[in-house]
Formats: sequence, C-alpha cells, structure tokens
Amino acid sequence: MTTDANRSGEIDPPARLMMGPGPINAYPRVLRAMSAQLLGQFDREFTDLMNETMALYRGVFRTSNRQTFLIDGTARAGIEAALVSLIEPGDRVLVPIFGRFGHLLVEIAGRCDAEVHTLETDWGTIFDQDRLAAAVDRVQPKLLAVCHGDTSTTMAQPLDRIGRHCRDCGVLVYVDSTATLGGMALPADDWALDVVSAGLQKCLGGPSGSAPITVSDRAAAVIRGRRHVEQGLAGPGAGPGPRPETGLRIRSNYFDLAMLMDYWGGERLNHHTESGTMLYGARECARLVLEEGLEARCRRHEIAGRALRAGLGAMGLALYGDPDHRMANVTGIWIPDGVDGEAVRGRMIRDFSIEIGTSFGPLKGRIWRIGTMGYNAARPPVLTTLAALGACLAAEGARIDPVAAIPAAAAVFERLPGEAPP
Amino acid sequence: MTTDANRSGEIDPPARLMMGPGPINAYPRVLRAMSAQLLGQFDREFTDLMNETMALYRGVFRTSNRQTFLIDGTARAGIEAALVSLIEPGDRVLVPIFGRFGHLLVEIAGRCDAEVHTLETDWGTIFDQDRLAAAVDRVQPKLLAVCHGDTSTTMAQPLDRIGRHCRDCGVLVYVDSTATLGGMALPADDWALDVVSAGLQKCLGGPSGSAPITVSDRAAAVIRGRRHVEQGLAGPGAGPGPRPETGLRIRSNYFDLAMLMDYWGGERLNHHTESGTMLYGARECARLVLEEGLEARCRRHEIAGRALRAGLGAMGLALYGDPDHRMANVTGIWIPDGVDGEAVRGRMIRDFSIEIGTSFGPLKGRIWRIGTMGYNAARPPVLTTLAALGACLAAEGARIDPVAAIPAAAAVFERLPGEAPP
Repeated sequence: MTTDANRSGEIDPPARLMMGPGPINAYPRVLRAMSAQLLGQFDREFTDLMNETMALYRGVFRTSNRQTFLIDGTARAGIEAALVSLIEPGDRVLVPIFGRFGHLLVEIAGRCDAEVHTLETDWGTIFDQDRLAAAVDRVQPKLLAVCHGDTSTTMAQPLDRIGRHCRDCGVLVYVDSTATLGGMALPADDWALDVVSAGLQKCLGGPSGSAPITVSDRAAAVIRGRRHVEQGLAGPGAGPGPRPETGLRIRSNYFDLAMLMDYWGGERLNHHTESGTMLYGARECARLVLEEGLEARCRRHEIAGRALRAGLGAMGLALYGDPDHRMANVTGIWIPDGVDGEAVRGRMIRDFSIEIGTSFGPLKGRIWRIGTMGYNAARPPVLTTLAALGACLAAEGARIDPVAAIPAAAAVFERLPGEAPP
Repeated sequence: MTTDANRSGEIDPPARLMMGPGPINAYPRVLRAMSAQLLGQFDREFTDLMNETMALYRGVFRTSNRQTFLIDGTARAGIEAALVSLIEPGDRVLVPIFGRFGHLLVEIAGRCDAEVHTLETDWGTIFDQDRLAAAVDRVQPKLLAVCHGDTSTTMAQPLDRIGRHCRDCGVLVYVDSTATLGGMALPADDWALDVVSAGLQKCLGGPSGSAPITVSDRAAAVIRGRRHVEQGLAGPGAGPGPRPETGLRIRSNYFDLAMLMDYWGGERLNHHTESGTMLYGARECARLVLEEGLEARCRRHEIAGRALRAGLGAMGLALYGDPDHRMANVTGIWIPDGVDGEAVRGRMIRDFSIEIGTSFGPLKGRIWRIGTMGYNAARPPVLTTLAALGACLAAEGARIDPVAAIPAAAAVFERLPGEAPP
C-alpha cells in the first residue's frame, strides 16, 4: 500500500506541443475558465450557464435542436449515450466501417444487442453516399450510425446527402463527430442528422471529459418513448413524479438521454451532478468557436492541414489515404522504408517536446498521424513540427529533404484566407 | 437558433459558500492543478501521473488493490461501472435501501437485468449489520450493493462487519462511498469491501466529473472473466490482440472495467481518452487527503459536523434522523413549523451568498441539509453559516435563538483535536 503523499509532487506537466490526433494543447482561455470556483448544480447562476452552453452548442452544431447539451464523460460517453438511448435489443443498425471508430460503433451497438449490419471499405478510403443510400434501402435499419472523421485512417466521410435520404425513409442517423466538430463543416440541420456527438479534445481545443451532443426532435420523441423516472425521486411534493412507463427502459441510467433531457430541461429533475469544471471548459470552447465564426474556423483548419501536407510532400514524404477525402485536421504519413517510426517519435519528444501520433490496428508501425487542430491549427505549430520532423528524420538517416518543407508550408499560409484554394 | 457568441460572457461565477450536500467549494489547490496544460494520453509523463494517481487512491481507499483508478464521469458513472461490470442478467443482487441512493442502486441493477432483492428501512434510520448478514444468508446473492453515506437522509450505514461476513459466504460487496470518502473512515481492505467507488465533489473537495474506484483481486477476477478486446484494436503488431471470449460480454463499453483495467494497466490498451484535467484534479484531491492524513481528516469532519449540530441545537432547531448514525459531513434539520424552507434558502443565497441544501422525495420541503466537508469542514464556514441561518430564520419570523448558536459551535472547535469527544 502506498500512502506516501510525498511520492508525487505538484502538478507540473512539461510544455509539449501536441501535434497528434488528439488530445492537443487546450486553449489557454479554456484552462483559465476551468479554474473558476464551482457552483451548486441547481443554483440559478449555474443553470443559467447550462442554458447558455446549450445555446452556444446549437451554434456549433448548426442546429435549432432544443435538446443540445453535454454528457459528463469523454467523447466515447457521448457515442454510448446516443446508441444505448436509441437502440432497443433486436433493432437493426447499419454501420459503415472505414476505420477503427466504425468498429467501435459496431461494438457498442452490439453491446446494446442490436442486429448490426456493416459495410466495410479499405482503410484509407470512404463510402460513396449512393452506396450508403443503397445499403439503407436494402437493410432498412432503424438507425444508421457513422463516423464523420475517423482519426485512425484520417479520412472524412461525406455526409451532406445521406441524412436527407434517411429522413425520407424514416431511418434515424447518428454521427460521431468527435474528431471534426469545430474544425470541419457539419451542419446538423442542413444535413438532416438526428443525433451528433463530439468531444472537446480535438478541434474544439479543450480537455477530454465532456461530450457535446445534439438530438433532433424526432430522435428525442423516440427516446422520450422510453422515459422512466428514477426510483427514489418521487414523493410528496416531488414535482412531476413518476409517469407511466412506456417503451422499453434504456439499459443505462447514466447514459439515459430521456433523463438527461429532464435534467437539462425546465424540469431540472435530479440525475448526476453536472461537472461544473467541465461545463466551464465546454462553454469556453464553444465561445471560442463562435467568436471566430464557424466558417473562418473551418477555413483555418483547412489551411493548416494543407500547409502541413505541402511541407511533408516537399520533404519527400508520402501521404496516406484517399487525397480527396482527407480530414482537414489529421494527416497520415507513410513511415519511409528503413525508418523506425517509434525512434522518430521518441526523438521528437526528447529533442523538441513535440508529440506526433502513432496508429492502430492494421496501420500500426506503418503511418504517423499529425494533427493540426484547435489552438494548434496555426502557422507556428505547423512550421515548428515540420522543422523538427525534418531534423529527426535526417538524424535517423532517412533520405528526405528537410530544408524544402518550411517554404512550401509557409507559402500556403501566406495566401490570404479569402484566397485559400477551394 | 442562437449563434450570438456575445450573449454569454467570460466565466465569472459569484463567490458562494457552498454548504449543501455537495458539490461544495473546491480546494483552490485542486482548481489550480486543473488549469495545467494537457498531455497526450500515452505520453510517459502522463502515464506516470496516472500511476501516481492509482497509488494515491490506494492510500485514500486504504487498500492494496492493484485495480484502483478513475472512471471518467461523475460519481454515478462509478456506480454504474461497478454494477454493469459485476452483474450478468439474472444475477441475484441484494440492496439495502435507507434513502434515495439505495433506490439508485436498485434502479441501475435493474437496468442490468439483475434479480434485485431489497431490504428497506425508514428514512432516517440504518440497518443493523446482523440484519444485513441474515438477509445475505437468506437471499444468497452474487452481490451486496450498499451505500455508505446516503446524503438524502444524512445517515451513514455501518459497514465494518458485513464485508467480512460476505467474504466468508462468497458474496461480493459493492459500496457507494460518494458522499463519505475522505471524510469518514472506510478502510476497504480492513472491512473486506470488494468494490468501492466515489466522486470528488463531497469530502474530497474537487469538482464532480471523476469517480475514483477500487476493485479487489477477487472482484477483478470475476470481471476479467468477461474480458473482450475491442474490435478495431487488433491487427498486425497490435500488441496482445484479441483473446478468446469467455464470460458474457459486459453490456457497456464505456463502463467495461475489464477494458479500463487494460487501459490503466501495463497493457495501456486504448479505450477512452482519459480526461487530463479531471485526472489532475483527482490527483490533487488525493494528495490533499494524504498530506493531512486520513485520520486527522476524518476527525476534522467529525468536529465540524459536531460543531454545526451544536450550533443548530442551541438555536432551537431539531435535527433529523437517528443521532447515532449520522454522517459526519451532512446534517439534516427539520424545517420549523410555519417556516417556508425555500424562502429561507433564497434569503441565504441573496443576503449571504450561502447555499444550503433542500431535499428529495419524502423529505422534500421538510428538512434542509447542510454539508460540512472538504474545504468547508472548518470553523469559519460553519460559524458563518450558523450566523447567516440564524439571521434568515429571524427575518422569516421563526421562533429560534440566533445568538446562542455561535458560542455553542465555537466551543466544539475550541477543544483540541485530541480532546474531541469519542
């Protein structure tokens, strides 16, 4: 048993430039917001902040959905809350898999005892939306569950048409936008997406631990059909009290979106104790997005990713995956033959305190992943990373041109934002 | 649609003295720790912090359990992680209910499709452990799930003997110590408790959003029997790779303690993205506990609660519940006849910026609850609260003696800690 408090000192993390697939450096404003003192969860000052946060995320998700709020957990908590609240055992769910996070959707839907149907495509490619629509027509699922950007492959699935098709067919659509929200366009209402969830630790530039989510009215109606009031909350004068049980009870209490709607709504029915600190952080992330403007922010991510790729190409490195469907904010790079990818990553940390990403599953040891998002979607982090990577590759004996990267990347930033290539 | 970023300004919560049943004011050191910049989840500097946090919480839980870590979610997430990972559908679970949080255990166990057996006692009382032991013998459950302190009734259930009885019978024991960990003695190993979970927002003096949990070797073995490696993580060079599926898969991915053990263990198998900010906060909470010393800290909570009760009694207010089994850190007070409890609470907020608690279910509108825990288990918060409450009650026309409270409470603090009554 270790009880020696002196073993671990004051928190004092080294200064890292975090250029992996996330988490990345949080905006200093977000960290400052999170150092504010707490409030009681039913304090009017706190519920006002909750309401403001809902309104802010409506802007971030580009939606008018009343049911737009936070799940107290990481991005994965948002995914599970959506799936477990929508899926009843035996429901048909269609999951297009183009990387690890498609498998995660399958895994979670499977644990909900859904009848899961999958489509697969090679890692590094995406699905044509006509293929998705045909699969929806064939399978006739209750729910289509799909990732927007899958950081495992650095690909972004186009979703601008499939939602409308599903709506026409009476199929619900869930989108995992963990890795893209606030960095790539994802207008939930225009694209007719029913439930979209995210995390803070990618383009939103906060810590993981809070999952913004939005739920369309039609999805909310499905979920409300499964509403049950918690035992122990009812009683004389307890407000709305228990309502008749209707649909099959949601298998999770913590992730029961019907209860969470009652907690975030006017009812304020007690559920978990909302994390004040994470709420402060999530709220500040959204304020940063809307102050910059969603379009300007997406353009900034696009330019930063393009600059990184220009630099990598000029250095002589080959990029991974379908060039027409890359995420703006995470880039995959083939590790050159004869180079030990982990040795390069180790050198980046040791000599420059810069983190770049390794990869999962079939790509492990074959590609690096470099993120350019949130606070780090800017010229200094991108150029610094390229300079450091060039030096580390040269030190490891790779045959690349470390000098050419910087002017190639800088040239992309030097175009005025309005002149960025389409 | 609201996209007007100017609608909500910088975070700037009013200064509250939070004397409800939690959350309460966080220690300033915890808030400072949480403002530190992030690290990558597999950065050696971060995994070292994770390991330190595990060691620190072994001290807080008084255990040698290797499996001692954090759940990324509020206290309720810790409860659900424990129950969903231990319970397979049809398992018998025994829940003694002495307040709302017993009902919550029933509710969550029910959603796991357990065969739930309950014992109930009147709110404001607890169970004799012999009665619990007899129920265990009769029901022969797989799991006994019980709260330590239930803030809804302000009662603390004695648990020093029942764990040993269960261990002798081969019954697992889960304890929800959300409201007591770090404020009342709960030595997990001495009391033979298998799984204990908590939250930060009570005696630990942090924000909600992280749930420390400890799992005994025998409980870990049960959980590992249900271990499944996530799809999409396996592949060439992916490390341990998928292992044969054994027991019934745990119904939740996010709360799958087998996966969380692989993530927090040497395997570091990717799962969620640990919240750096909440980890920093949880770690600082534990450092504060161990620096003060668990015994000294429990004594401080005992004295603060005793002082509050002395003051309330001297004022002429009646205390709620069994006087022999009160929580040290939350006190229930009967709202005097003819007094509008909510009017008093509103006045406390408006005139003094002090929050005291209302209550749930059958006690709603009948008692207030005042917390004396963590950072606020100290003389100034207690005396300030008593002075303000006396003034507000007088203003509302209650027949109490506001003057007598302060010397009565101060006298308790003036005893040296070693002289505190048994």
